[in-house]
Order: sequence, then C-alpha cells, then structure tokens
Amino acid sequence: MEPDAHLIERRLGGRTLLSGGFLEVHKDDVRLPDGTTATREYIRHGGAVAVIALLDEGPDTRLVMVRQYRYPTGKVLLEIPAGKLDPGETQLACAMRELREETGYSAAEWAFCTEIHNAAAYSSESIWIWLARGLVPGPARPDRGEFVETVNCSLAELEALEARGELPDVKTQVALFRLLRAQATDHAWPWRPAGELAAL
Amino acid sequence: MEPDAHLIERRLGGRTLLSGGFLEVHKDDVRLPDGTTATREYIRHGGAVAVIALLDEGPDTRLVMVRQYRYPTGKVLLEIPAGKLDPGETQLACAMRELREETGYSAAEWAFCTEIHNAAAYSSESIWIWLARGLVPGPARPDRGEFVETVNCSLAELEALEARGELPDVKTQVALFRLLRAQATDHAWPWRPAGELAAL
Repeated sequence: MEPDAHLIERRLGGRTLLSGGFLEVHKDDVRLPDGTTATREYIRHGGAVAVIALLDEGPDTRLVMVRQYRYPTGKVLLEIPAGKLDPGETQLACAMRELREETGYSAAEWAFCTEIHNAAAYSSESIWIWLARGLVPGPARPDRGEFVETVNCSLAELEALEARGELPDVKTQVALFRLLRAQATDHAWPWRPAGELAAL
Repeated sequence: MEPDAHLIERRLGGRTLLSGGFLEVHKDDVRLPDGTTATREYIRHGGAVAVIALLDEGPDTRLVMVRQYRYPTGKVLLEIPAGKLDPGETQLACAMRELREETGYSAAEWAFCTEIHNAAAYSSESIWIWLARGLVPGPARPDRGEFVETVNCSLAELEALEARGELPDVKTQVALFRLLRAQATDHAWPWRPAGELAAL
C-alpha cells in the first residue's frame, strides 16, 4: 500500500471555471482517502522563476532587487526579480530573460537554489529560485505596462527590513534565509557557466 | 508628490470573473503610472493565519506540524498548521480554531510573528504568522473532507528537510527562518496570555 494512502486525493474528473485571461481556474471532483468525494477549486499555474542576483562575493554581497506595485496587495513590494515561465520555456531561459528584462543584468554563472510552493491550498504554482553571479549591466526592458525600479541591497539591509516586517514577499524571504544559511555553513552552490546551462 | 507615484496603479473600475465557490476572481481596470490603462486579474482573499506551535522551550524545541495532501501541487506537504479566516473572525480566533481543529492543541500564550504575502502577483492574500506555547493536547476536529496527520518536528529536523528541498511550503520556511534567527539573536517574542488576547 502507498505510504500516504490515508492522505492522497484522486482526481475523478473536472471542468474549467475560468480561462483565456491571466488566471486559469479549474474545479476537479476528487475521491478522498475515506472513499467519499469532494471538489477542489484551484489555479493551474505554469510556474515561475526567481533570481538571487549577487553583485559581489562574500559577506558584503549586495543583491539586485526590484520594487514594484503589486496591485492585489495594494503595496509596493521589494522583491528579488521573478516572472512566469513562457510556454515551453526552460527555468534557466526564463531566469535569464526576467533578470535582463527587469534589471538589465546578464550573469556569467548560475546555480539552482530551491523550489517552493507559495500557495499550495489553491494554486499549482512552483517558484524555482536560481542564483546568478558575474553580473554584467545592460538596459532594462520591462514588459509593456510593467513599472519596476531596480535597487541594490546588502544582506544586512535585507535582514533589518525583514526583522521589521518590511520584506513580506515570500520568495524574497526564502532567498534571504538560504543566503544567510549558506554563509553560516560555508555552503558551496553548484555554479555553472551560463553558456553551458543554456545549451541543456 | 507621493513617493512611489512612478510605481502605483489606480483602480478605475472592475468586474467579478468568478465568485460563489472557493475562489473569488476579479478583473480591474487600472491607470498605470504613465497615464495609460491596463487590466489586473487577481484573487480577492480574506487572509489566512498560520501557527508556530512550540512544544518545548529552548534550542531543542519541537513544533507541532501537519502533513496534508495539497491537491493543486499533487504532493503531501509538511506544514505549520494554518487556515483561512472565517468572515468577521479575528486573526487570533482563527489561529486558536485552526490549531485546535487540525492538531487538537490549545495554547496558553500567543505572540505575533509576522505578515507575509505569498502570491502578490495574483492574490491579495496575507498570511499572518503567530507563535503559540503552553500547549495542552485535546482531540483534533478536522473539517469534513480534510485529512491531516499531526507530527512533531525539532528545528534540527526541519533544517535538514529544508536543506534537502523537502520543505517547499513557504509559510513553513518563513516560520523556520524566524525561529532560527530568534534563537541566534536571543529575540524575545511579545508573549501574552490567550485569555487576555481573546478579549481584544
């Protein structure tokens, strides 16, 4: 018997509640672990990539961050650069594109950091977090209708903001946590040249 | 002039795309900082509360965690207890109810930890994280159709899972980060008795 059979829900069927715009909402019928049925309403999301872009090495490292108005929350948030995968796009192609579009930077080396689920109750979204270093500046090319401000922040600045509750974006908190722990444990990220990874 | 006028978007009007079920989706017309217009499609969410339930004090503290199948992600996730606010419910009433329903525990003291935005691109959701201590066990009363398994985890166990990428739930990562940093800095949480807070 499957280890988590007492928890797992099985899809019986379903329908699309909303599609064609920005959000795709589905409602599935599921069989619960006790054999009864229920419905699950959720967003099918193609996934997103976020980038920890390191301007320097060592404990004084600064991150390339973006400030943008997040309409659903009614707030300007300070975040690591991120964006949704285009159809058929690889994680790394998306990471390179979003970093360049939002901040203008290209990076010589990349390393995978982690995958998070940010709204598991109602969205299939994964955010794959990548690290970038060897940054080369260039012109930012934000999407039409996207207004983004680039700022550089040290880890100490981000820690202070986080302690005051002024860094509410989750992927940014996870990025900060990972960086601080990597520093504390002398963790070696699996860096690889951009060209080598792009060819995969 | 407003400091972030070059970033802020103003609502011009809007309509409801989906409502009456679990998710409420809206599409608003907005005026962008450059005076042009665009639309923003997003979920209006009433907010959620998550609970860091501490079984013991000090560096060997264990957390009361839940394992549950998160249908949208197709995975069983290990998470701190959490749930959505009922209409008119306070954060603390929700925290107490969710902890009791999912794990059976009541807590003698509570302290506010932080607020996070977990899907700022397409949801208004806030998750307010609270800490609970002085735990007293009781019978769990999960909602109908909710299958939840309670497990106790030490901080060291959670750190090890996180390092292996096996703790992808964001509120749980933020909780772990906050606890580790509080330990490292000898941070004093603003504990208050449950009875005193419930009367607010």
